Amino acid sequence: MRWSQLYVPTLREDPADADAVSHRLLVRGGFVRQLMAGHYSLLPLAVRVRSKIVEIIREEMTAIGAQEFVLPAMHPAEIWQRSGRWEVMGEEMFRLKDRKGADMALGMTHEEIFTVLAQELRSYRDLPQIWYQFQTKFRDEARPKSGLLRVREFTMKDSYSFDLAQEGLDRSFDLHKAAYERIFARLGLPAIAVQASSGSMGGSASVEFMSPSEAGEDLVVRCPSCRYAANTEKATSALAAVADGPGLDAPERFDTPDARTIDELTRLHGVPADRQIKTLVLVVDSRLTLVVLRGDHTLVEQKLLDALAATAVRPATAEEIQAALGASPGSLGAVGVTGLPILADEALRGRTDMTTGANTDGVHLRGLSVERDIAVQHWADLREVVSGEPCPQCGTALEVVVTIEVGHIFKLGRKYTEALGVTVAGPDGDRVTPIMGSYGIGVERALATIVETHHDEKGIVWPAAVAPFEVAVVMLSTTDETVTEAAESLYRQLRAERVDVLLDDRDERPGVKFRDVELIGIPYRITVGARGLAEGTVELTTRATGETQLVPVGEAVEHLRKRRETRMSADG
Amino acid sequence: MRWSQLYVPTLREDPADADAVSHRLLVRGGFVRQLMAGHYSLLPLAVRVRSKIVEIIREEMTAIGAQEFVLPAMHPAEIWQRSGRWEVMGEEMFRLKDRKGADMALGMTHEEIFTVLAQELRSYRDLPQIWYQFQTKFRDEARPKSGLLRVREFTMKDSYSFDLAQEGLDRSFDLHKAAYERIFARLGLPAIAVQASSGSMGGSASVEFMSPSEAGEDLVVRCPSCRYAANTEKATSALAAVADGPGLDAPERFDTPDARTIDELTRLHGVPADRQIKTLVLVVDSRLTLVVLRGDHTLVEQKLLDALAATAVRPATAEEIQAALGASPGSLGAVGVTGLPILADEALRGRTDMTTGANTDGVHLRGLSVERDIAVQHWADLREVVSGEPCPQCGTALEVVVTIEVGHIFKLGRKYTEALGVTVAGPDGDRVTPIMGSYGIGVERALATIVETHHDEKGIVWPAAVAPFEVAVVMLSTTDETVTEAAESLYRQLRAERVDVLLDDRDERPGVKFRDVELIGIPYRITVGARGLAEGTVELTTRATGETQLVPVGEAVEHLRKRRETRMSADG
Repeated sequence: MRWSQLYVPTLREDPADADAVSHRLLVRGGFVRQLMAGHYSLLPLAVRVRSKIVEIIREEMTAIGAQEFVLPAMHPAEIWQRSGRWEVMGEEMFRLKDRKGADMALGMTHEEIFTVLAQELRSYRDLPQIWYQFQTKFRDEARPKSGLLRVREFTMKDSYSFDLAQEGLDRSFDLHKAAYERIFARLGLPAIAVQASSGSMGGSASVEFMSPSEAGEDLVVRCPSCRYAANTEKATSALAAVADGPGLDAPERFDTPDARTIDELTRLHGVPADRQIKTLVLVVDSRLTLVVLRGDHTLVEQKLLDALAATAVRPATAEEIQAALGASPGSLGAVGVTGLPILADEALRGRTDMTTGANTDGVHLRGLSVERDIAVQHWADLREVVSGEPCPQCGTALEVVVTIEVGHIFKLGRKYTEALGVTVAGPDGDRVTPIMGSYGIGVERALATIVETHHDEKGIVWPAAVAPFEVAVVMLSTTDETVTEAAESLYRQLRAERVDVLLDDRDERPGVKFRDVELIGIPYRITVGARGLAEGTVELTTRATGETQLVPVGEAVEHLRKRRETRMSADG
Repeated sequence: MRWSQLYVPTLREDPADADAVSHRLLVRGGFVRQLMAGHYSLLPLAVRVRSKIVEIIREEMTAIGAQEFVLPAMHPAEIWQRSGRWEVMGEEMFRLKDRKGADMALGMTHEEIFTVLAQELRSYRDLPQIWYQFQTKFRDEARPKSGLLRVREFTMKDSYSFDLAQEGLDRSFDLHKAAYERIFARLGLPAIAVQASSGSMGGSASVEFMSPSEAGEDLVVRCPSCRYAANTEKATSALAAVADGPGLDAPERFDTPDARTIDELTRLHGVPADRQIKTLVLVVDSRLTLVVLRGDHTLVEQKLLDALAATAVRPATAEEIQAALGASPGSLGAVGVTGLPILADEALRGRTDMTTGANTDGVHLRGLSVERDIAVQHWADLREVVSGEPCPQCGTALEVVVTIEVGHIFKLGRKYTEALGVTVAGPDGDRVTPIMGSYGIGVERALATIVETHHDEKGIVWPAAVAPFEVAVVMLSTTDETVTEAAESLYRQLRAERVDVLLDDRDERPGVKFRDVELIGIPYRITVGARGLAEGTVELTTRATGETQLVPVGEAVEHLRKRRETRMSADG
């Protein structure tokens, strides 16, 4: 490709609204433009990268026997109603009516629609099946942000497995896990596989692939010693026990007129946070619920949802709290409460001599024993693990890493096949409901995450496997025939060797050309100028390392080949 | 690929609801399944064909210097409002609100959105640009039908050209016309390039590519002698003059109590249809309008819309007609009408001694002269050409052919660039508004049209360039090792030669295998059976011709190569 015929609107300045490195560099480099919040146009350079990512994913999906489909993006409401997700998906699902007034959904995911196709499977001999597609997904995100990282419209590789029984699902799941590891390795994306919550998907197990990045929104807890790693929605730790006193025979009220927070109670009354009980009043699936945690712990809402198999949670309003407990936030407690469900975090088990609010403004209780004084209905792991807590497997201090979710795989069970009535004839002639898995990679998010993890102060540093072009041949003059002919000749040679090469034949100053090649992140640059040619040389530069070398013009292609091979084995 | 690992749910019976050959064969052959009216799931075989079609289009677009983009499918209403098409598109555009209540459209086409990107073009030196994408389009068709031929959701290759001036647009348009001709030739689709109406696109000229097929919905008029061809929305003919008498000095009323139609007036009063005037009362863009045509002629609504630069037309209700003309349909006429716009078809020019309704029930007028007695505001070509009329260029009797529109290209002018404020610096430093073209091919419609034009009673007969597989190696036994080994060996050889080959390794009866290979339309079949192998032969069959030949097993690949080469040059 010749740059003069390529539309790459690079910008001198950073875009004002970019809140992530990848967003800034992809806009500056002329890869993407925002149409509206959460919807991006991909320009030619981005289309090239995207198609290389798609091809890598396709190869690895083919390698595990997956077959490619393309399903509609618009779905009849009725199918989502049958699975129960028409309600569950809430505001995140785009909905519309067609000209006849029928309710339609734009697909956020395709479990239901692939399951409709699975209704045609007849026999256990038709299993297993792994079906996938690259298709646009629509999700009405509350806060689209960070360029391509959190959008409302994106391409997803989503796949779905249908197996006769659990061991088949385990195998399909493991095949995907291994395929995803190869995919992320080929994309140059470090990805930590972590246990995760299944959320609205349902199912028994799920693993997320998390790429460490400051632009991320998800926290991963991992052990630097053993292989333990989990999303904060699932992570736990081996907390050290707190030494408790015996407490009192019954909780005792004491006045705390100025202490409305955990901190104030510590500061003004000398009660350490880990000896206090934090009481949260929440509305879970429209039911008022009390949650108690250790004073220094933070609730993970997804853990609460998972514990109750619920789908939505919000804090109760001051009015709702007043009506239920007769007190304002600041002196709330669960002692003596009987009309509401009470959940307690496991870290409160067996604790004595604790302090909590008395449900009277300006009054707290001390000396209480949790299991004696609070009518806990449900114990669960509800708290957020923080950095430095001991690994639950080996005791080493855990790390908490900010990450981007780049893949997510689920063991779904039979939720969808049951809802949509899929059965096949089993080996004994009985009807069997197949068991499903589902597996997703967001293509444009992967693209942006590669930029998050491969850039420097000059711009993007694409891994060769996904670079829009692998090599740029830069002609320093467009009028000096020696230069143009040598550059054209190198361009021809590289094309003949099927190298993905860009000839920078623009009539621009060398500084502009170098800046652009660095900004858009081409892995290798061959610079052809009059001064070098006078001595028979061109310049070969590796973007990632900055390594620059004068090589004889006749040996440039050979030198490039050696660098590519060395680097590829380093990358791999 | 091994058939045992491929999901191809072929059906024994025709689907009950299939109203087109392509629909029937694509469902029976396991290529597609309907999710709901107008929305189809593509199964693995269809995905393979589609990707070959896409690749052919991509190659030809690249060859004319077009660059690939991917733009959002969901658009903010505001951009469509700026071009005026938020209103114009009516019920055909899917609309929805996001969670914040903002109005969104699903893209029917992308003129507006590409034009937004063109706002960044700075100088005449940035032109021309040809930008394209493969993207899902959504159109809320009133009557989705005929399988993939008329749907609500489909993939379109749409491209857009931006040029400085008319001659640039002419060149971009001609490049596309030539590219489309190459594309349809490579797809094996006979396509007639015809003049067409630009409809809601606006612009000065458009050409449609029409593929003759009984499943079509569009009529094309073409001359068997010269190159004249046009959509009925544009077609005209050299009508023979009708010999008129001198007529009367003024129109004369006569009673016609039983004659309410053209036919009845001919039958009961002996007035030939071509000496009558047909008067239509229509509401055009909410304005009541009279249209007069020769009695035996039919109005083409699009011609009327084009003549008035209008967007919508409907027949007036009986009440509207009564209010405007004081008469019921059956005796309507334009003589003496002054308060309404009157359009007349060119075939009425200069006509005398004509008969028409008197706007009094049961009364007609005779002896009228059109130009003397009717206050025509606007003369235009409004009538439908019928088969046998003389070609306007050479006089030969015209044919009317039923066709499917497989491509449409438009000279748009500056409608969108003006509406969205696109200007570039011209050569003299002045600001110039670029001129646009737009160009579209529906990918799945092309796929279905190929089936419409390439099938026989046994199933589909894919042209090799787009077949899901080019060769099927059919093993007649899965237990006889001689057979399986010979088939596997042929499969390996063909794969080594990069032939797209399918190995039918299913444990099925030969009859089932042959039927399936024929149904799904694989161009070549190599049949490997014990009987043939005993004599050292396999059977080579060409799907299109049925030609079958026993060839030595060691020469099968060579024989196949010869057939492919011969056929390819025949196809080309």
